[in-house]
Amino acid sequence: MAPSRRNTERKPHAARRPHGRKSFAHKGESDPTEGWIWGRHAVLAALANPRRRILSLHVTRNAADELGDADLKRASLEPPHEIASHLPEGAVHQGFAAKAKALESESLNAVMEPTHGLLVVLDQITDPQNVGAIFRSAAAFGARAVIMQDRKSPPLFGALCKTAVGCAETVPFIEVTNIADTLIDLAKAGRFSVGLAGEAEASLGEAVAHHAGPGLVLVLGAEDTGLRPRVAEHCDVLARIPMGPRAESLNVSAAAAVALYECSRHDPRINPKD
Amino acid sequence: MAPSRRNTERKPHAARRPHGRKSFAHKGESDPTEGWIWGRHAVLAALANPRRRILSLHVTRNAADELGDADLKRASLEPPHEIASHLPEGAVHQGFAAKAKALESESLNAVMEPTHGLLVVLDQITDPQNVGAIFRSAAAFGARAVIMQDRKSPPLFGALCKTAVGCAETVPFIEVTNIADTLIDLAKAGRFSVGLAGEAEASLGEAVAHHAGPGLVLVLGAEDTGLRPRVAEHCDVLARIPMGPRAESLNVSAAAAVALYECSRHDPRINPKD
Repeated sequence: MAPSRRNTERKPHAARRPHGRKSFAHKGESDPTEGWIWGRHAVLAALANPRRRILSLHVTRNAADELGDADLKRASLEPPHEIASHLPEGAVHQGFAAKAKALESESLNAVMEPTHGLLVVLDQITDPQNVGAIFRSAAAFGARAVIMQDRKSPPLFGALCKTAVGCAETVPFIEVTNIADTLIDLAKAGRFSVGLAGEAEASLGEAVAHHAGPGLVLVLGAEDTGLRPRVAEHCDVLARIPMGPRAESLNVSAAAAVALYECSRHDPRINPKD
Repeated sequence: MAPSRRNTERKPHAARRPHGRKSFAHKGESDPTEGWIWGRHAVLAALANPRRRILSLHVTRNAADELGDADLKRASLEPPHEIASHLPEGAVHQGFAAKAKALESESLNAVMEPTHGLLVVLDQITDPQNVGAIFRSAAAFGARAVIMQDRKSPPLFGALCKTAVGCAETVPFIEVTNIADTLIDLAKAGRFSVGLAGEAEASLGEAVAHHAGPGLVLVLGAEDTGLRPRVAEHCDVLARIPMGPRAESLNVSAAAAVALYECSRHDPRINPKD
């Protein structure tokens, strides 16, 4: 019942598929290290990202006006419907599409120190649009990096990049093999982790204010299941976003935006008076 | 089979379409006062909403277990693919779909007074997923109602209801013919409007704190164009969400969540100590 088990790295016929055919990366059937990016912001940011290797670039004549010389040279000028033919149905490409290699994870060591800035840790959040929206909010509120588990994180392509409007290229992402172990390492480095949990006693505002100084780590779990027990256990404090009496839940990317905003209130770059 | 085509007396050719065909309501080709709702939360909330008239109900055998007797009686039990056949491609229905009449707008007078609670005004925000997400955050942070312009607001069906996970049924929505005139009326009633604008001088926190007491109105514009000039003019104050040096923008539903959170900090139901 699970055709997604086919994601073997070496699928020789995948390589032989003629250029320009729809990639099945989205369906997990071909090389998982390659995928499509579409949308103006997403593609222009990918082109501007020295860490992103572009395999092919497909733009309309109008879109080509926005490319630099080097990109223009390698671009294939195509009418909108031909660009759409590479992409999943309904993809809003705005005249821009690129096939690209996956981004390589940056090193956890590069962001370990409290002074490196706010970190966002995603525990099993897999929906590409939510993760993309979180990258966008992370950029807006000056987070240093987004950390995900290597085997559970959606690849930085497609809907994720579209929703991130370029921020999946500008906010470093870091893959780790174990989230709880990573929280232990971050604590040893002097960081302070706040895990969002609806049932927590402390409010988000209290929890963040409780920790004066840099080094905050924001830990977010999936909407339905929340943080896994061992992940929650290794947060320094669990906190809830206070909500109204009707007590509905928030979408995880809305919760992320709120939590990032609350953390940013203590960031002197964003709120100099604080 | 549910008599889902019975209420189409005035559209003879629609009535002749064979049962089970995709509704074209989404494409604006049929009666705009009718549409499909899908997804467990969205459909169960619609069934529980006395203001929502259900025209037909389609559920899987498993989903039927969650229905009350009255709903079970009128439900058509269908396999998942048959439910999917009524809906736009890719709709994740979770075994629940309903064809329903549009909700009627509630009266502005019913929410006019400052003591009625926080209002959210959407100025030309048309993306159904963003509006659905805003309904969800509005519910979470105890907003009294969402106000939209009658000719510019997406109907409360489909992707909007799915994203709102039931909150489009529980948070009243109010259609008005002119947003700026509505802000004038709300000001006369003693309310205080905060419009979000990236270029504003005041920060959101300052603007909200500036107005002690109830009666806040949060006014949000479209991501690309922002508030229209006459709408901005009739806000009591414009405020920005402080952001990092990279100064990326927020998605409008993320901005709404942050702004609702900031307003909720002054709501004694949500933050009793404040």
